[in-house]
Amino acid sequence: MNTKEITVQRLAWAQLDEAARREALARPAQSRNDELRVGVERIIEAVRKGGDAALRELSATYDHCTLDAIEVGAAEFDAAEATLAPALKAAIHEAAARIETFHRATAPQPAGVDTAPGVRVERMLRPITRVGLYVPAGTAPLPSTALMLGVPARIAGCREVVLCSPARADGQCDAAVLYAARVTGVHKVFKLGGAQAIAAMAYGTASVPGCDKLFGPGNAWVTEAKLQVSSDPEGAAIDMPAGPSEVLVIADAQANPVFVAADLLSQAEHGPDSQVILLSDSDALLDSVEREVQRQCAELPRAEIAVQALSRSRLIRVASLDQAVQVSNRYAPEHLILQVADPRALLNGIDSAGSVFLGAWTPESVGDYCSGSNHVLPTYGYARSYSGVSVASFQKQITVQQLSAEGLRAIGPCTAILAAAEQLEAHRRAVTLRLAALGDDVLVPPSTENVA
Amino acid sequence: MNTKEITVQRLAWAQLDEAARREALARPAQSRNDELRVGVERIIEAVRKGGDAALRELSATYDHCTLDAIEVGAAEFDAAEATLAPALKAAIHEAAARIETFHRATAPQPAGVDTAPGVRVERMLRPITRVGLYVPAGTAPLPSTALMLGVPARIAGCREVVLCSPARADGQCDAAVLYAARVTGVHKVFKLGGAQAIAAMAYGTASVPGCDKLFGPGNAWVTEAKLQVSSDPEGAAIDMPAGPSEVLVIADAQANPVFVAADLLSQAEHGPDSQVILLSDSDALLDSVEREVQRQCAELPRAEIAVQALSRSRLIRVASLDQAVQVSNRYAPEHLILQVADPRALLNGIDSAGSVFLGAWTPESVGDYCSGSNHVLPTYGYARSYSGVSVASFQKQITVQQLSAEGLRAIGPCTAILAAAEQLEAHRRAVTLRLAALGDDVLVPPSTENVA
Repeated sequence: MNTKEITVQRLAWAQLDEAARREALARPAQSRNDELRVGVERIIEAVRKGGDAALRELSATYDHCTLDAIEVGAAEFDAAEATLAPALKAAIHEAAARIETFHRATAPQPAGVDTAPGVRVERMLRPITRVGLYVPAGTAPLPSTALMLGVPARIAGCREVVLCSPARADGQCDAAVLYAARVTGVHKVFKLGGAQAIAAMAYGTASVPGCDKLFGPGNAWVTEAKLQVSSDPEGAAIDMPAGPSEVLVIADAQANPVFVAADLLSQAEHGPDSQVILLSDSDALLDSVEREVQRQCAELPRAEIAVQALSRSRLIRVASLDQAVQVSNRYAPEHLILQVADPRALLNGIDSAGSVFLGAWTPESVGDYCSGSNHVLPTYGYARSYSGVSVASFQKQITVQQLSAEGLRAIGPCTAILAAAEQLEAHRRAVTLRLAALGDDVLVPPSTENVA
Repeated sequence: MNTKEITVQRLAWAQLDEAARREALARPAQSRNDELRVGVERIIEAVRKGGDAALRELSATYDHCTLDAIEVGAAEFDAAEATLAPALKAAIHEAAARIETFHRATAPQPAGVDTAPGVRVERMLRPITRVGLYVPAGTAPLPSTALMLGVPARIAGCREVVLCSPARADGQCDAAVLYAARVTGVHKVFKLGGAQAIAAMAYGTASVPGCDKLFGPGNAWVTEAKLQVSSDPEGAAIDMPAGPSEVLVIADAQANPVFVAADLLSQAEHGPDSQVILLSDSDALLDSVEREVQRQCAELPRAEIAVQALSRSRLIRVASLDQAVQVSNRYAPEHLILQVADPRALLNGIDSAGSVFLGAWTPESVGDYCSGSNHVLPTYGYARSYSGVSVASFQKQITVQQLSAEGLRAIGPCTAILAAAEQLEAHRRAVTLRLAALGDDVLVPPSTENVA
C-alpha cells in the first residue's frame, strides 16, 4: 500500500471565514437519490406482497445465497458455537456483562409525585413489545452490534426480540453474530440482510414477526428502508437516522501522537466516507500526528479504505481548547475523544456528541466493544438532537394519574377555567359534572366570561 | 342541534372475526396526499429562499393578516397580560407549577458506574440547544400547549426556546398563549402559523432562529411540514408523528355513566376525526352511557363536531376486563381511562398507551391542563413505540468513559479480541499500542487466528 497518497487537510480555524468554516465541518452530502429510493420501495412492496417467497428470491439476488429455512435453527446455533475460539466466546460474554452493567445503571426508573393533595401522577415504564434488530455483515460481520442491541432489549423486557443479519453465500450467518445473539437472549434470528430484512421486520411475513421498532446500523439500502418504513404509520418506528461514522479528537501539546494517530485510523478504517477531524492548539502535535498517521496506516490491512477516509479528514489548528470545544459542539461528532491534560475540565462545555472518551488510556475502540456504553450513536450532526441507543430506546414512558375526590376538588377549578379559555366546553363539563356529583358548588364561569 | 343524528356503533368483541376486529379498531386513513405534500414543499422552499419576506407573504395569504414585526415585542406581551382575567392568569400559573412539579420529578438524572476497576462510564445530560415550539390556534388558541412544551424546555435548560403561534386577522397572537409563553420563560415568540412556521424554525430566517428540534401539535399542514423537515438532515428533528386525538375508556358495571359519557364527549369535541372507543363488560353500562351521550351532547356548543366524531365511535361489549385490556393494548390509545372498581389491578396489564386516567374522579381533561402530566402524546397507534413529551424530549443523553491505565489493562484484551474478530485491525491497535506503551506484553492474537 502506497501511503504517500495520504494528503491530510491542514487548516487554521482563526483564518477561516464563515463559509470556509462551514466547509471545514461539512459532511459528505447524503443524497437520497431516486434510484435508491425507488429500488427500496420495490423491495418493500415485494416483501409485503410476496412474504417469505419474496425474501428467498431477494436473498438469492442480493446475498447470492439459497435459503432453506429463513430462521436460524437450534442446530445452527450449536454448530456456530462449536466453531468459535474459546477466547472469542469469553470476550463476547465479558463484553455483554459490562454492557449490561452500564445499561442497567442508566436505565430509566419509574417515578411519581403528588402534584396536589389527592393528585397522584406517575410515570411507568413498559417495554416496546416487539423489536427488530439489524446486524450488518458487509465488509465484516459485527457481533458487537448484536450485543449493543440485544442487551438493552433484554433489560427493557421486550417480549419479542427479532434479529436479522445477512447470510453468506453458503446460507449461514456469521458464527460470532449467532453466538452473541444467543448470549443476549434474542428470541429469533433470521438470515436476512438489506432492505428486505427491514421490510420483513416492519410488516411481518409468515416467518418473520412484524415489529414495532427497528434498530441498528446498515448500508445505504438499509438506511433508506428504515426511513421509508418509519414514515409509514403501518410500518415501524426506528432508532435514529444514520450517516457515515465519524470521530473528532481534541488533543493538546501533551497528547501522545502515537495514540492520537491510532484513534484517527481506527475511525478511518470503517469506510471510505468515515469522517476524521483533529483539533489542536499545538502545531507540533498536529505535525507529529500527521507523521504518525502516515507511518501506522502503512501497516493496516484496510489501509486502502483508511487512505480514502483520511483524504477527506481535517487537522485543524485552533487558538485554544475553548475554541476547540466550540468547534466540536458545532460539528456534533458521533465520537469525541479528549486527549488533553484535564479532559473533565473540557467536558463541562460539551453540548453535543454521541459518546465521549477521556484521556490517554481511553481509545474509542473500547466504546465500540466493551467499556459498557452503547456504540449505536447519532452520526451526521444528529447528535444535536438525538441520543445513542439505551434501555430507554426499547421502552415507552406512560404517564398515569389518579385523583381522589379531594384531588378533583383541588385541581378541578383550574382545569375548568383553562378548558373554558380554550372553548372546550365538554372538557370543562367532565370536571364540573363530577364536582356537582360531589355536592360542590360549581363556581367556574362559562367560557365566554373568562376574558375580562 | 339535532342530536338524534348520533348513531353510535355497538359491537360485541367475541362475535367479531379477525377482519372485523381490525376494522373495529381501525383509525381513519392518514393519506399523505400529493396536493398537501407538494403544497408544503413549496411553502418550505419559499421560506428557505425568501426568509422573512416570504413569511409575511404567506401570513397574508393563509392567516389573512398583515404582519408588522414577526416577533412579538415586550409591549405586546404587556398588552396581552392586561386583557386577561385574573382567574385565568392564576390558573395558568397554577397549571405551570404542577406541570413543573411532575416534570422535575420524572426528569432523567445523570448516572454512572465503574464497569471494571479503572473503567468509569457515565451518562451525562445536555439540553438540546435550540428548540422550536408550535402552538396551534385553529378552532381555538391553546395556551395549555404553550405550558406543556415551555415548562419541560425550561427544566431541560434549552438555551434558545422559540415559540410560533398563528396571528389572528388583527395581527396579534392570542393573549393567553402569550401569557403562558412568558410564564414558562420562552425566549422568543413569533406570530407565525402553519407550514411556514415549521419551515422558519427548521431552517431559520433573519428573524426566526433555526432550531435543532421542533415540538407540538398542529393541523395537516403543520404535521406534513414537520415530517418533511425531519427527513432532511439540514432540517430539524421532531417530537413524534401525529394523528387525530383519541380516547379509549374501559368501564365496568359500577362506573358512573354520566362521567363516562362526559369523558367520551370531551374527546369527541376536539374534532370530527377524533376517535372515541368505550369497552365494557356490562351491557347495562353501555346502554346507559349511550343515553347519557345523547343527552349531554345536545347541550354542547361544539355538538356538531362531537356528533361527527361520535358517528365513528364504537361501544364494544367485551367478555371480561382482561379482554378489555387486550383490546386496549392492541389499539394503543393516546388517552386511556380506567373507570373500574380497581383500576390499579388493570394497570399492570397495560402495555401501550400515551397517558392513563384511573378511577371515577380522574377525567381526561385534568391531564390536558393541570394534573402535571404532559398532554403532547402519541396518537394513531404510535403509543406502541413512542412516549409523550417529557423533559427527556428536550435533552440528549451523552455517554462518557474514562479509563485509567489499570482500566485499559482490564478491558483492553477483550476489546482487542472482538476488534480482531470483526477484522478491524486499527481498532485493535488503538488498544495494543497503548498496552505496549504501558510495558505490557501484548498477547492478543491477530485477527486471522481468532476463529478456531
